[in-house]
Amino acid sequence: MKKILNRPEEFVDEMVEGILYAYPDKIMPLNGDKRVILNKTKKDNKVGIVTAGGSGHLPVFLGYVGDGMLDGCAVGNVFASPSANKMYEMIKACNFGKGVLCLYGNYGGDKLNFEMAMSMAEMDSIQVKEIRVMDDIASSPIETKDKRRGVAGMVFAYKVAGAAAQKGYDLEKLVSVTEKALDNIRTMGIALSPCIVPEVGKPTFSIKDDEMEIGMGIHGEVGIEVSKLKTSAEVAKMIFDKIATEISFSKNDEVAVMINGLGATPMEELFIVYRDLFNILNGLGVKVISPHVGEFATSMEMAGLSITIMKLDDELKTLLLHDANTPFYTNANKK
Amino acid sequence: MKKILNRPEEFVDEMVEGILYAYPDKIMPLNGDKRVILNKTKKDNKVGIVTAGGSGHLPVFLGYVGDGMLDGCAVGNVFASPSANKMYEMIKACNFGKGVLCLYGNYGGDKLNFEMAMSMAEMDSIQVKEIRVMDDIASSPIETKDKRRGVAGMVFAYKVAGAAAQKGYDLEKLVSVTEKALDNIRTMGIALSPCIVPEVGKPTFSIKDDEMEIGMGIHGEVGIEVSKLKTSAEVAKMIFDKIATEISFSKNDEVAVMINGLGATPMEELFIVYRDLFNILNGLGVKVISPHVGEFATSMEMAGLSITIMKLDDELKTLLLHDANTPFYTNANKK
Repeated sequence: MKKILNRPEEFVDEMVEGILYAYPDKIMPLNGDKRVILNKTKKDNKVGIVTAGGSGHLPVFLGYVGDGMLDGCAVGNVFASPSANKMYEMIKACNFGKGVLCLYGNYGGDKLNFEMAMSMAEMDSIQVKEIRVMDDIASSPIETKDKRRGVAGMVFAYKVAGAAAQKGYDLEKLVSVTEKALDNIRTMGIALSPCIVPEVGKPTFSIKDDEMEIGMGIHGEVGIEVSKLKTSAEVAKMIFDKIATEISFSKNDEVAVMINGLGATPMEELFIVYRDLFNILNGLGVKVISPHVGEFATSMEMAGLSITIMKLDDELKTLLLHDANTPFYTNANKK
Repeated sequence: MKKILNRPEEFVDEMVEGILYAYPDKIMPLNGDKRVILNKTKKDNKVGIVTAGGSGHLPVFLGYVGDGMLDGCAVGNVFASPSANKMYEMIKACNFGKGVLCLYGNYGGDKLNFEMAMSMAEMDSIQVKEIRVMDDIASSPIETKDKRRGVAGMVFAYKVAGAAAQKGYDLEKLVSVTEKALDNIRTMGIALSPCIVPEVGKPTFSIKDDEMEIGMGIHGEVGIEVSKLKTSAEVAKMIFDKIATEISFSKNDEVAVMINGLGATPMEELFIVYRDLFNILNGLGVKVISPHVGEFATSMEMAGLSITIMKLDDELKTLLLHDANTPFYTNANKK
C-alpha cells in the first residue's frame, strides 16, 4: 500500500486535523469533535443545510462546509457512514430556527443513519427534510432511479441549495429548488485504476492495463461494462449521449459542466476531456456557463473521471453563480 | 499507457484549448497562437512578468497567468522548453513600457531560449531582466546553488512578483523583492511513482512497491536517495530539517507553506502531511500565514509531494496576501 500516512486507523482524524489547521477562519469542530465540522460563520436567519458521508472523497464532503454552501458535515471513516448520533448533534447545531435540510448521497448506511437522526431531531421539534442525491446515471435505469448513487453532481446540489438558503428561501422552497436542480443534473464516470482503503490495504478492484471500467461508482461499485481504453473524444461523446437520453439539449440552452478527476488523473487530461465535451455542446449551440474542471469528488488515488451536466434555467443559473466561500470551493473563479 | 487523451502528439494543444475554453474571460492566446498565453486584462502601467516552460506540470506554468500574477506564458511540449522566438513574441506583448521580468525555472533549455529571446527584445530597446528559480534544495548543495532546479516554490515567486508589479514596483525594485523572496524559499519533494510522457509512452523511472525516491525532480530527475517508504510525520520532519539547514526559524517567525501534490497523491494524504508539518512549526512557535495545500506544480500522474516553505517579512507577507485571480489561483481562499 503506497500511501503517505502515519497509522491507517488514524487516517481520517489526522486528515481532518490538517484541514482544520489549514482553514481555522472558515470551519470548526462541533464541541471539539473533529468528526462533525461546522461553518464558523453562524447564520441566524436561514435554513440549515447539512450533509454526511464516508471519507476518502475530498473535497466531498466536508470541503464544502462554508458560506454559501453547507452549514455542517458529519465525517465517517473511509467509505463508511458516520453514526446517527453525530448526525443528530449536527442537525441540532445547524438549526437556526428555520429548519434543516439533510442533503446527501443515496447510500444505504447514510440513509439509515440520517433517517434515525432526523427522527431524533423531530422529537426536539426541529423541522427537518431530506433530499438524497442520485445523479449517477450509470448506476441504475431511470425506472429504478431511487437505486442510483449520489456522486459528483452532489456538489452542484450543495451549491444551488446553499445559495438559495443564503438568499432566504424557506425550507419548502429550498427543497423544491434543490429537487429541480437534481432533476436537471446527471453524472457518469469512468475508472482506469482502483484505490486502496487505508485500513484494508488492498485495491478495491482489478482492471487490465488496456481497459477502463465504464459507469463505476466512487467506491469501486461495478459499472455498466469493462471496455478497451477509449480516447478522450470517445469518452466525452459516450457520456454526453447517455446523459442526453434523459435530459434534452437544444440550441441556446445553458448548462453547467463538471469534469471531475477521481484522484490520480492529471489535470491535463481533464482539460482535454473538457475540450471534447465543449466541442459537442458548442456544436449543438449549447452554452457552458460555469465550467468546473478539477477534483470535486474523488476516490483517493483512483484514476478516472466523471462528467456532470446541470441544465440551467434563470433561477438555477443565479444560484450557481452566487458567492460561495468554503475551504475547497470559491466561485470567484467560476464566472 | 493508461491515459485519457486523443493523439499523444496533440496532447498539449488540446489541453491548452480546453483551458482557453474554460477561462475565456481571463486568458487569451497571442494572435491566435495557443502556445503563448496572455492575461486578458491588459495592464498599461506596470512591469510585465512572463514565464515559460514545458507542459505536464499543471497548474504550472500557464495556470498562473492572470491578474496579480503573470502577464504571459510560453507553452512548450511535455517536459520541453518552448522556442526562443515564442518567448520573444511574448516579451514584446507583455512590455507595457516599464520593462519585463522573465521569471522561470532553472532548466537548460528554458535558460538558453529565454536568454536568446531577451537579447532579441533588447535589440528592440525593451528593458528585460531575468530571475531563474532554484528552490529545490535536494538538487544540488548550497555551494553550487546555480545548479538547483526550480520547482513548486516558483508559485510563491510568481505570487510575490505579480503582486509587487501590480502595486507599481519598478523593474529594479521588482527584481530585488523577488530575489529576496527566493532567498527565503526552499522546496524538497518525494516521489512514490513515475509518470509517463504521452509521446514517449513509458514511465520516466522505476521504483519498488515499498520504496520512495527522496529529493526527486518534477521530471523524474534523480534525487538524494531511494529509501523505504516513510510515514507522513517522517517525511515532514525530514524535509523540514533539510530546509532548516539553510533557513533559520525562530519563535514568532511567520512562514507560508505549500504542500504540493505531484499529481496522483490524494488530497487526504496532503492534509495529513500538512498536519505533521504544522505540528513541527507550531512546536517552534512559528506561525503559518497562508497554507497552500493542493496541486500547484505537478508531473502528470506522478505520485508524491513536495513541501515548500517561504519565510516571511512584512513586505513578503503583504505581497503574498495581495489579491490574485488567475485560472488556477485565487487568493480569496488563502487568508
